[in-house]
Amino acid sequence: MTHTIYNKALVDQVVAELGIPRLENATIGEVVLIARRLEEATGIPFIRMDQGVPGLEPCRIGTEAEKAALDTSAPAIYPPAEGVPELKTEASRFVRAFLDVDVSPSSCVPVTGSVAGSFGSFIACCQRDPVKDTVLFIDPGFPIQKSQLRVLGLRWEQFDIHDHRGEGLHAKMEPYFASGRIAAIIYSNPNNPAWISLTETELQTIGELATKYDAIVLEDLAYFGMDFRTDFGRPFEAPFVPTVARYTDNYILMLSSSKIFSYAGQRAAFIAISDKLFGRRFEALAARYSGSGVFGPTLTASILYMITSGVTHSTQFGYAAMLRAASDGILDFVAETREYARRARRMKDIFERHGFRVVYDRDIDRPIADGFFFTIGYGDLSCGELMSELLLYGVSSIALSTTGSDQPGVRACSSRMTEPLFATLDERLAAFNQDHKIQTK
Amino acid sequence: MTHTIYNKALVDQVVAELGIPRLENATIGEVVLIARRLEEATGIPFIRMDQGVPGLEPCRIGTEAEKAALDTSAPAIYPPAEGVPELKTEASRFVRAFLDVDVSPSSCVPVTGSVAGSFGSFIACCQRDPVKDTVLFIDPGFPIQKSQLRVLGLRWEQFDIHDHRGEGLHAKMEPYFASGRIAAIIYSNPNNPAWISLTETELQTIGELATKYDAIVLEDLAYFGMDFRTDFGRPFEAPFVPTVARYTDNYILMLSSSKIFSYAGQRAAFIAISDKLFGRRFEALAARYSGSGVFGPTLTASILYMITSGVTHSTQFGYAAMLRAASDGILDFVAETREYARRARRMKDIFERHGFRVVYDRDIDRPIADGFFFTIGYGDLSCGELMSELLLYGVSSIALSTTGSDQPGVRACSSRMTEPLFATLDERLAAFNQDHKIQTK
Repeated sequence: MTHTIYNKALVDQVVAELGIPRLENATIGEVVLIARRLEEATGIPFIRMDQGVPGLEPCRIGTEAEKAALDTSAPAIYPPAEGVPELKTEASRFVRAFLDVDVSPSSCVPVTGSVAGSFGSFIACCQRDPVKDTVLFIDPGFPIQKSQLRVLGLRWEQFDIHDHRGEGLHAKMEPYFASGRIAAIIYSNPNNPAWISLTETELQTIGELATKYDAIVLEDLAYFGMDFRTDFGRPFEAPFVPTVARYTDNYILMLSSSKIFSYAGQRAAFIAISDKLFGRRFEALAARYSGSGVFGPTLTASILYMITSGVTHSTQFGYAAMLRAASDGILDFVAETREYARRARRMKDIFERHGFRVVYDRDIDRPIADGFFFTIGYGDLSCGELMSELLLYGVSSIALSTTGSDQPGVRACSSRMTEPLFATLDERLAAFNQDHKIQTK
Repeated sequence: MTHTIYNKALVDQVVAELGIPRLENATIGEVVLIARRLEEATGIPFIRMDQGVPGLEPCRIGTEAEKAALDTSAPAIYPPAEGVPELKTEASRFVRAFLDVDVSPSSCVPVTGSVAGSFGSFIACCQRDPVKDTVLFIDPGFPIQKSQLRVLGLRWEQFDIHDHRGEGLHAKMEPYFASGRIAAIIYSNPNNPAWISLTETELQTIGELATKYDAIVLEDLAYFGMDFRTDFGRPFEAPFVPTVARYTDNYILMLSSSKIFSYAGQRAAFIAISDKLFGRRFEALAARYSGSGVFGPTLTASILYMITSGVTHSTQFGYAAMLRAASDGILDFVAETREYARRARRMKDIFERHGFRVVYDRDIDRPIADGFFFTIGYGDLSCGELMSELLLYGVSSIALSTTGSDQPGVRACSSRMTEPLFATLDERLAAFNQDHKIQTK
């Protein structure tokens, strides 16, 4: 007799009803639907470790500034294609304050979430040179970015960094450039889903290869400053957040408000394009868009503007206010989000107590940080098996196989854990452990 | 001696500084930049007839509802991919109230402006069948929609409807379908830039051809209800706004908040996909996205979600509130926007007094409505000549050639005219007329 929370037949029925062909390949959106449907059907709540949703209140500095903007005429008037000046200025200042990198305001462009930033950047990067048509993923990564390339019909290559950290990264990466087809390199740091943080040496490797082979690095800083082993929360003071921008001029940084300001609902991010890349002219862009072919203006006016015609006006003022408060030292967004590290630490302890292991556990020579995500494995269960089995015990997660990882395991998100859920998690994992024979620590 | 407001040498210099290769092909964005730069350089304000920006205050029912939503947790939480239920319900109800068409809430999907709606719809329409790769424009039209196809690398064909109104439309249109490549047909009604309104006979022709050749009609209703010759402002009562939805099941309607609620800054629209099309399965979509291949869910979850991951959360509540107020009969958006008709009428009178003519002047047998846009020509001046010459007299407009029109003339927008500007327009056009010999009426 097993100790599952949900009946296997019921789970199978829900999966069938939702038309999900193979549960082990389920997307984040599909896992969310399964969890919601099972909760509705049984009244038993899930431990929702699936989607990376902020679990804190939205930053009120932002919402108050939005409300003030709503009282002006701004809601009636199209936002400027390149973004409102206040936001561009504060974006540039924030990049200086926390990354110690200079990107001028004109090269900082608001986007409707980093997802729109990567979508537009993929287009520009892969249209700038007829030979360069492929994106290289340093995986594991955010599955939506590959889905974007599927929408656009663009090629990609990928590798799992797990066995190629540190000095090994260069040897692993360079062969991908031999074809001459790599237009862009993309990764997130800290990493979604593995929560590894690239070291300065690794960032240097990536930057140097990008320069050597003229590839553009798309650095996704969604979890900006959330490597909580170091306090990155003080503006204009070392230590600064690690970035590839120190090692190449071929970069586009993506800075989202979703996690650092708990602002995911409002769809606000900005991309910071290196000034050198912003001003570079590409013949293929000039020909396609009958324009100057200059990278930054083409991406802004001929690509991003054609997709959403700007970013929600009031939200731009909200985002500007939050960035300003952070750079002024009034809002310590690192301290605010440190709560996720506390939740992750307690969750990892519970998982480990019941025979689970952290999969991506080290940044070369030191344990990874506690933060928004972590990865867990169990015995010799595959990604799909572990994800499906955990569902039966009322714990939803994402199979690592869907993130470009070669390791068996799942991604867990700490954001939605609340105090009463820790005891529930403990019980459910104890039951799981009881049903799946394995040596516990 | 001429009576220009701006010196020709200065205009030429500004055009050169902005790197605009051929003034007569200037995009809306470029004309806006020229006008702003000249205003800054001289201190002399333009009569800005260029961009179609709302000239009224934003609808306060919307901004108040947004402010209320900002005080909840909504700003922190990703909006649902398919849109918030309140907005979906009100969108469906609005379509019933003012179009007398049934589209269920699940087939009404919020988008980040109609521009995102057409961008995503172009992708879905052109990926659903490998043979159907071309969009047919019933021009004149909105240049950005062709720019979107340029971003995506998709084909289009187009014709100017000017000489093919009424019974002639069928004979003109049908040959485009012979290739089997037409995936979608797009037009705006009332028309941007010409402000013509298609008749029921014309909509029937378009609908029947769409059904016969399995093309999807993208009907852009940005200026919904703004054919002020008829009062469309009473919910659930005839007369209803004309729509192709009465003549085919192959339609996607695009309803923007920008003009009818003066809400362009917030980037909120919805698409209403016919329930039949929403539920249709396409093998090519199933293969590409490894999913069900059902049109609506694929467009929503596999395409639109990958571009912006939903629409700004607070704005969805604002839009829902405005739609609700309109359907409840509390907010008469037709009466609110009728101000544009009054402005257009006065502008046309001034133009005609000084020798100009309205280019697209009739809907077959009756004069076109006064509204947001109108078109004017002068003597035998070409589109580019008239647009450039008007610039010298402090009047900015859009060359009709950039809209797919074969007629010589420019587009004028009535939205930004304010009381003191009418006398100025009169003086400037008198000067123009004095310098350009032509018989005045």
